[in-house]
Amino acid sequence: MAKITKVSPLAPAAFPDIPPIGGVEFAVVQAGVRYAGRTDVMLARLAPGTAVAGVFTRSATRSAPVRDCQAKLGGDATGAAAILVNAGNSNAFTGHFGQTSVAEITAAVAECLEVAPERVFTASTGVIGEPLPHDRIVARLADLRDTLASDAIRAAAGAIMTTDTFAKGAFVSVDVDGTPVRIAGIAKGSGMIAPDMATMLVYIFTDARVEQTALQTLVSNLTGPTFNAITVDSDTSTSDSLMVCATGAAGVDATGDRGFADALHHVMHDLALQVVRDGEGATKLVEIRVTGARNDSDARVHAMAIANSPLVKTAIAGEDPNWGRIVMAIGKSGAEADRDLLSIRFGTILVAENGWVSPDYSEADAAAYMKGDTLTISVDLGLETGAFTAWTCDLTHGYIDINADYRS
Amino acid sequence: MAKITKVSPLAPAAFPDIPPIGGVEFAVVQAGVRYAGRTDVMLARLAPGTAVAGVFTRSATRSAPVRDCQAKLGGDATGAAAILVNAGNSNAFTGHFGQTSVAEITAAVAECLEVAPERVFTASTGVIGEPLPHDRIVARLADLRDTLASDAIRAAAGAIMTTDTFAKGAFVSVDVDGTPVRIAGIAKGSGMIAPDMATMLVYIFTDARVEQTALQTLVSNLTGPTFNAITVDSDTSTSDSLMVCATGAAGVDATGDRGFADALHHVMHDLALQVVRDGEGATKLVEIRVTGARNDSDARVHAMAIANSPLVKTAIAGEDPNWGRIVMAIGKSGAEADRDLLSIRFGTILVAENGWVSPDYSEADAAAYMKGDTLTISVDLGLETGAFTAWTCDLTHGYIDINADYRS
Repeated sequence: MAKITKVSPLAPAAFPDIPPIGGVEFAVVQAGVRYAGRTDVMLARLAPGTAVAGVFTRSATRSAPVRDCQAKLGGDATGAAAILVNAGNSNAFTGHFGQTSVAEITAAVAECLEVAPERVFTASTGVIGEPLPHDRIVARLADLRDTLASDAIRAAAGAIMTTDTFAKGAFVSVDVDGTPVRIAGIAKGSGMIAPDMATMLVYIFTDARVEQTALQTLVSNLTGPTFNAITVDSDTSTSDSLMVCATGAAGVDATGDRGFADALHHVMHDLALQVVRDGEGATKLVEIRVTGARNDSDARVHAMAIANSPLVKTAIAGEDPNWGRIVMAIGKSGAEADRDLLSIRFGTILVAENGWVSPDYSEADAAAYMKGDTLTISVDLGLETGAFTAWTCDLTHGYIDINADYRS
Repeated sequence: MAKITKVSPLAPAAFPDIPPIGGVEFAVVQAGVRYAGRTDVMLARLAPGTAVAGVFTRSATRSAPVRDCQAKLGGDATGAAAILVNAGNSNAFTGHFGQTSVAEITAAVAECLEVAPERVFTASTGVIGEPLPHDRIVARLADLRDTLASDAIRAAAGAIMTTDTFAKGAFVSVDVDGTPVRIAGIAKGSGMIAPDMATMLVYIFTDARVEQTALQTLVSNLTGPTFNAITVDSDTSTSDSLMVCATGAAGVDATGDRGFADALHHVMHDLALQVVRDGEGATKLVEIRVTGARNDSDARVHAMAIANSPLVKTAIAGEDPNWGRIVMAIGKSGAEADRDLLSIRFGTILVAENGWVSPDYSEADAAAYMKGDTLTISVDLGLETGAFTAWTCDLTHGYIDINADYRS
């Protein structure tokens, strides 16, 4: 991991300017979990009363920290809380060592920050199957506590990276009942990305107050069209975690507020697309819009079949407007389609309709369109009004380089 | 297509010796459908009374010839029959042109060979979405008829190739009631390979007599553990066709004969594995054995999740015994698994058990094992007795080379 240092060509120009979020502080450290010469542990401290919601991988072999977080969600939210994340070792499939490491870390964080152990959430990302050297993390907790700062979110985003080629952050401000509230998030993830969810860790913080159960419902609902709508390689991690923390420091309650929900959706969408933009070996970001399906569920099946097809993704890498492979992917998806009713567009170019290539189709125009680094492929099934949009990237030699190296 | 001329390192040493099958003749021709300088059309003539069974892609966007064959299966079997296959153009997603081409070809074959049009079966493989120049095929029918020969099965195997790097054939002889009967088959396919079924054309011929309905049931049942148990890239073609033809020329009835069924299974298994051995870019053939699942269906879900995982397949390409990715694939499959009950073996090497790496595991031994070109990965779920075996290949730069070229 972390061997590929060239930044993705699809990366944003810079990490966004993110102001402090009231009630949240960050610290990072070089604990040497696996990597040398870089930060690999992030600590976030959350003010008393912070509501915490989460969505996690549904993998049957999910990691010990994921199981621990799932057990703690929904508990009493009155006390302070903490999140500790390490990179380099996922603490997944580590037998009884896994839970031991989680218990050691959470107990030490609880003692060090004087928070309840039930309010300490952890995550680990990196190699599967090797015991986590939790002592290296515990040994640095005092240093982490002593350096907590409200303006360190950029450093936090850097400390949780693994094969990521750029740190991922997003920020919006939105008025709730006339009071500005802030929503900021960080994410890591670039491979083993697919619903549900991705090799992805996402932490979002807001200074709005949101009732905890309502926050959980909102986050769960917003995960479908964002983090569960992206794929890099159809592989799903054992460690995926998304947590959203509402500190209430802004002094306004955003529970049920539509503008707040839209703003949170925006941050989640932004971070999800940054993960695809950092897809291992990716050179193109591709939006797959499916409409006209029998229902939304069918639309999602078609969209993900296209987004995950190796033949579609290699064609995109080759800048080939190979719409026959789109037809193939629709056909294999298992969801309803009628060959003679579907239409396909690359950008605004109508490629196929009525079961065949469009009479106005220009291969030269389509080939020129495919040279862009941000593409939209639209499919209308012509059946009903079911719709879903997914995001994927191309499949290139870079993906093989990253993943076919011995224990990358 | 046909640009990659280097033969797969996993190819058998040679095409097998296949004696004539009574009641079957073959001819091939260079019709110039798309390729120049190679045969691209195959004709097989089948004696009167030949029973014909078939299994086809379930793609919702399947091609015109597939739909035509499906409509004809199960009809009266008294007359002679014919199969005509072209390579270079799949006649798929060609709108109304598709059915017109099929009708033109079948009518011309019927007239030329004096067989009923309902007994003429066609298949097309190659590029999707371009009208099939059927006139080029029809123009060569008389030449095909005049060169029909009982010993031309090797040439037939060559004429149906597209991205294949070697011609695929299999043969067995089996005694039925003391009479030897022959079963011979040919296949093409190397990419867009996944259940159900694969970009695959398979034609199997026997001189046994088999009642047509019984033959169809037998072939359908044997497809599950053979052609529907292989994958190259998880992509499914719009043109997959498997046909089995029993001429009865050997003068013995094999309907319900167990030895015959086993022999047919052997031929289907052999051809299926040859398709994986010719997987685009493949350097390793991998058998995925799943046992101990809740039921056979769950075992299949786990096996195919492993067999289709890009991260598993790139690890194999890198000769990395990365069992963490096996754990990941099991976890994401959706079928039941208990992290702490599963065990994983590479060959005979016990890698993981009881939710963690085996105490006797030697990474050096496993790494040495991974250098072989034929690998077995075994997973026991430790739940019930459900079992399934799948076959796949590694994911290499070769796959990208073949599929990311413009309109390969």
